[in-house]
Amino acid sequence: MAKKSIAPSTSASKPTSGSVKARDIATQRKILTLAEEIVRRSLGGREPIVQIPTRTKSNTIWNKKKGILEMGDATAERPLFDLKTAKQFMQTMLHASTIKDLIEAQKTSSLRGVFYKAKHTVAGTKENTFDTQDESDPILEDLEVALGALREELHVFAENRGSMVGNITIVDKGDEIDCRRMGSGGYALPSIVEPDIIQFKKCEAKFVLHVEKGTVWNRFNEDRFWEKNNCILTHGAGQPPRGCRRLLQRLNQELKLPIICVLDNDPWGHYIYSVIKQGSISLAFESTRLAIPDAKFLGIRAKDFRECGLDDAVKIDLTDNDIKRAKEIAAYPWFEAHKGWQKEINALLSNGFKMEVESLITKDISYVSETYVPERLRAKDWLE
Amino acid sequence: MAKKSIAPSTSASKPTSGSVKARDIATQRKILTLAEEIVRRSLGGREPIVQIPTRTKSNTIWNKKKGILEMGDATAERPLFDLKTAKQFMQTMLHASTIKDLIEAQKTSSLRGVFYKAKHTVAGTKENTFDTQDESDPILEDLEVALGALREELHVFAENRGSMVGNITIVDKGDEIDCRRMGSGGYALPSIVEPDIIQFKKCEAKFVLHVEKGTVWNRFNEDRFWEKNNCILTHGAGQPPRGCRRLLQRLNQELKLPIICVLDNDPWGHYIYSVIKQGSISLAFESTRLAIPDAKFLGIRAKDFRECGLDDAVKIDLTDNDIKRAKEIAAYPWFEAHKGWQKEINALLSNGFKMEVESLITKDISYVSETYVPERLRAKDWLE
Repeated sequence: MAKKSIAPSTSASKPTSGSVKARDIATQRKILTLAEEIVRRSLGGREPIVQIPTRTKSNTIWNKKKGILEMGDATAERPLFDLKTAKQFMQTMLHASTIKDLIEAQKTSSLRGVFYKAKHTVAGTKENTFDTQDESDPILEDLEVALGALREELHVFAENRGSMVGNITIVDKGDEIDCRRMGSGGYALPSIVEPDIIQFKKCEAKFVLHVEKGTVWNRFNEDRFWEKNNCILTHGAGQPPRGCRRLLQRLNQELKLPIICVLDNDPWGHYIYSVIKQGSISLAFESTRLAIPDAKFLGIRAKDFRECGLDDAVKIDLTDNDIKRAKEIAAYPWFEAHKGWQKEINALLSNGFKMEVESLITKDISYVSETYVPERLRAKDWLE
Repeated sequence: MAKKSIAPSTSASKPTSGSVKARDIATQRKILTLAEEIVRRSLGGREPIVQIPTRTKSNTIWNKKKGILEMGDATAERPLFDLKTAKQFMQTMLHASTIKDLIEAQKTSSLRGVFYKAKHTVAGTKENTFDTQDESDPILEDLEVALGALREELHVFAENRGSMVGNITIVDKGDEIDCRRMGSGGYALPSIVEPDIIQFKKCEAKFVLHVEKGTVWNRFNEDRFWEKNNCILTHGAGQPPRGCRRLLQRLNQELKLPIICVLDNDPWGHYIYSVIKQGSISLAFESTRLAIPDAKFLGIRAKDFRECGLDDAVKIDLTDNDIKRAKEIAAYPWFEAHKGWQKEINALLSNGFKMEVESLITKDISYVSETYVPERLRAKDWLE
């Protein structure tokens, strides 16, 4: 297990009002550059155009050395004088303007809030700028990649999901939060966890145990697992949202804490791990800020049915879709080149059934937190 | 607005290890009584039977005086020697046994955990005690009503969902949590918030503002609404789960804080309010522990489109299902006898469109937290 260290030289971790401003000024400048270029083209008698990097699978590259998914160089033009793109051009400008307003007001908004902010009926017509949020979210992602700024830097938040307890004190907007004293509820993870909002203070923890579900998290918290094993305990209520992933990455990079995952033994659990580790295709442009290449998968493993001596009743038959997904995941480049993962996915397929973390309850209510995870940790028995 | 008071005589609020035991001993006694009755009947040569109060709409009574939904007296017999009920009888006994174990071990479990604990293949057969959780959850509800004990008293938790910040200090499992200093994330609401786990300590807040969604909660928290308006700010991530409802009820009953809701202007928002206020049919047996008859509905109101001068683009057409639901809700006895609510639902129907809380963003990013809610609070302009 890596040594704890509070990386004192990480300036990003220091709460200075200067750093807030610096980040925002940089984003502002990017928006103004975008706008000025359009004005310049217009005044010069040329057609206004925005260049949008392409967020497709074909423009996603697996960077083996870094161990993350990255976006390639392909871009698409979005000209104003084209019936196919004129509306999107207008929508891009509207959202850029909203973001400028948000930054100036030093406020943040949700995806839905940004959608509403720009939604209005164009004067003298019955045409809306946006009809549904489905049109709005991709335009925001376009802006993220076009500006090279994370959604968080655009002052836009996603859902709040997930909780944290454990041997760490953090500072959230100036409030010191002792995660060792958060009772049964825990600290609710916010969506924006950038260093100007959240700073790490005192941390004795030697690793982070990340579990899939809140109900499993409750079991570990009730058994004071984080206290007995000197760690931090998190969950992301299923596929962890960006705030949770980014916080895990910061704990990993800045405090050098290993991230150890306890997820279901099914393709969905494997996919959650894959996203935590390598990033996802749709957010490939953000992998450097979200992916954790050395994240570990402790379980549940296909071998556990036999190793833990579980009852037949915990088996849940794989569906056709599960089998299809398992094969797709096995073909991901980072799993394809990994003997351990090929073996793991094959074992799932040859088992013919999946298992949830909760299936360990059939042994004993605290088997997972007091026997299974501690034993695997001691043996360093995990996949990575 | 009611005066703040920390009801010093509420013994339930005092954290004594004795009170934990008392609650658990009472539940244990109920389980043993159930078991002993079955043993007695068996030894006496009579058929083992469990009596289960009926959880149907026809056995749900609207108690106008108390302002809550209650369960009637109808019960159904669940005999062992009947092919239709033998399996359920066995399942009921299995879950009662798991609960006894949980209480003895002083641990809690999730609905899914209890399901797994009881799930096994019956020796010498291919028959499982339970196949899916759909079979298991209703058996637990049966036990709640048969034993007259809340799910929380059976040591079973639901999801953790929702967050809280504001002018209150609570104690959660012995940890003091200052909700005035919880940053952008907040205190994550646990599922079990009974007085032996959560106690209220210092509270200056004069009311609770409960909003529907986490994204709206973020807006109010970022604008420090709870500080400027001396209140507590909560959300339940949609239809609030039991832990959130029970905590709101305790804040209302023990600290005499009005609960003021800001929900969407649609049948779903009205239904959320209805459940917070009067309870639900499926949980009618728990209304006395969950319902808040004097909860207030501040908005969004049907009149707000005109009163706030909103743009046509915020209108979302009512679907046929919305219209059907609105009429059903209008026919609930507590809404049927309420002129204000009849007018409100009729206004929604005659508008022909619904509106989300986020639609107020079209006015200004902080219009909802800095203008709309403060003005309505001052004018006491709400429905109750």
